[in-house]
Amino acid sequence: MTTVSLQPNERLDDLLTEELKIIQSDEVFSFSMDAVLLARFATVPVRGKMIDLCTGNGVVPLLLSTRTKAAITGVEIQERLADMAQRNVVLNRLEGQIGMLQGDLRTIHELLGYGVYDAVTVNPPYLPVQAGEQNINTHIAAARHEIFCTLEDVVSACSRLVRTGGRVAMVHRPSRLIDIVGLMRQARLEPKRIRFVHPRAGAEANMVLIEALRDGKPDLRLLPPLIVYNEEGRYCDELMRIYYGESLSLSGNANTPENGKE
Amino acid sequence: MTTVSLQPNERLDDLLTEELKIIQSDEVFSFSMDAVLLARFATVPVRGKMIDLCTGNGVVPLLLSTRTKAAITGVEIQERLADMAQRNVVLNRLEGQIGMLQGDLRTIHELLGYGVYDAVTVNPPYLPVQAGEQNINTHIAAARHEIFCTLEDVVSACSRLVRTGGRVAMVHRPSRLIDIVGLMRQARLEPKRIRFVHPRAGAEANMVLIEALRDGKPDLRLLPPLIVYNEEGRYCDELMRIYYGESLSLSGNANTPENGKE
Repeated sequence: MTTVSLQPNERLDDLLTEELKIIQSDEVFSFSMDAVLLARFATVPVRGKMIDLCTGNGVVPLLLSTRTKAAITGVEIQERLADMAQRNVVLNRLEGQIGMLQGDLRTIHELLGYGVYDAVTVNPPYLPVQAGEQNINTHIAAARHEIFCTLEDVVSACSRLVRTGGRVAMVHRPSRLIDIVGLMRQARLEPKRIRFVHPRAGAEANMVLIEALRDGKPDLRLLPPLIVYNEEGRYCDELMRIYYGESLSLSGNANTPENGKE
Repeated sequence: MTTVSLQPNERLDDLLTEELKIIQSDEVFSFSMDAVLLARFATVPVRGKMIDLCTGNGVVPLLLSTRTKAAITGVEIQERLADMAQRNVVLNRLEGQIGMLQGDLRTIHELLGYGVYDAVTVNPPYLPVQAGEQNINTHIAAARHEIFCTLEDVVSACSRLVRTGGRVAMVHRPSRLIDIVGLMRQARLEPKRIRFVHPRAGAEANMVLIEALRDGKPDLRLLPPLIVYNEEGRYCDELMRIYYGESLSLSGNANTPENGKE
């Protein structure tokens, strides 16, 4: 049994399935639906190299590990979170696939190089620093506000790290869509797939998933809307599948002792 | 009774309600759902001045006339269509509200002036000239392909004609979204409302409605998806309301002899 120590006010949660565990803390960082949807939305290479920026406690690399054999690097600027992410890798015995780095995405290419990743994922802070009151907890504030990096910093970093023909997937707020796609084009990242997430069928979107191709040609696919809640206020079928995947499939084979991973 | 002559191969159709008639021709121009959705989607001033570019047979100004007291100008480059549009105005006795102009949107500001309209609508040709085989019928081809104007010409014309704080509403294909919003920003038109139209709930969008504010601040609302067909292959309720409006309302009062216009 792998032992990993929990710090005060940290807790150990299941990460969607019983096969993945995640250390979280409401004081510092807990993963949200945004991260889950990003990890499911991104096109992943079968193998090769991926990188997740603004990785927080490493939730996106953990989820990606179930979809690809690629080596995955997570980058987080906050030491406390980078440490939590590293413990999450060890906890899930994923040291062979995932590496966590504490570092600044604005300069990380100096260490990692240009154009070396097949795919980049990022769930950046959504709010400009001037918008509204910042959370007084600096860890939470940095995850929500553009304190350590602006949207332009994030897009530029993605563009530097991804190879020609590689993909960059981002989750963000629809209110910033025009900024995002403008910055992407400036950075030679051509948006190819966009999916909007609406809390209910008749509601405005509150989340957008965007995937761009480095040096791609203009031609956007606007995917079906993803609706979170049905009319009874429960998760829609597709969201249940995204969250719990095969374990809810009709075949009923997944996650049984006979077929599950040991 | 107003008399308007029909040319060969033209026909007279109801325009959604029995209160509006429209001359169409499959050889030259017939209106599509795109025009109807644009005319319903656009924010209209109570009064003032509006202009519709690429007006074709004038379907958008005719539909707008039911929503606003504004004076509406339609601009169409093809003489045959501009003539049809003008007869449609007379046919519906809307000469007091709608004026039709045969002209080129690339130079029409020389006649009409800069920044004089409260709102602009446009349903431009969707396809670049190089994309696929062009329709050999020149009228149909010009309505579908960027023969007389490029997307950039269209956006520039909208920007020249609308006043500061005025609105520009466009319908287009989602594949061109990134081009559209990029050109809009270059032309000081800030996208504020976007709505995607999906043929079915689980299908990719095949139409996008965009409204921009001249010299507006960045802040986009991404409206609920508009789904055209329900699972039985019939128009969804919202589309029925958009097409037939109050005549299908529960009150049952509209379009009855007692309440209808004479």
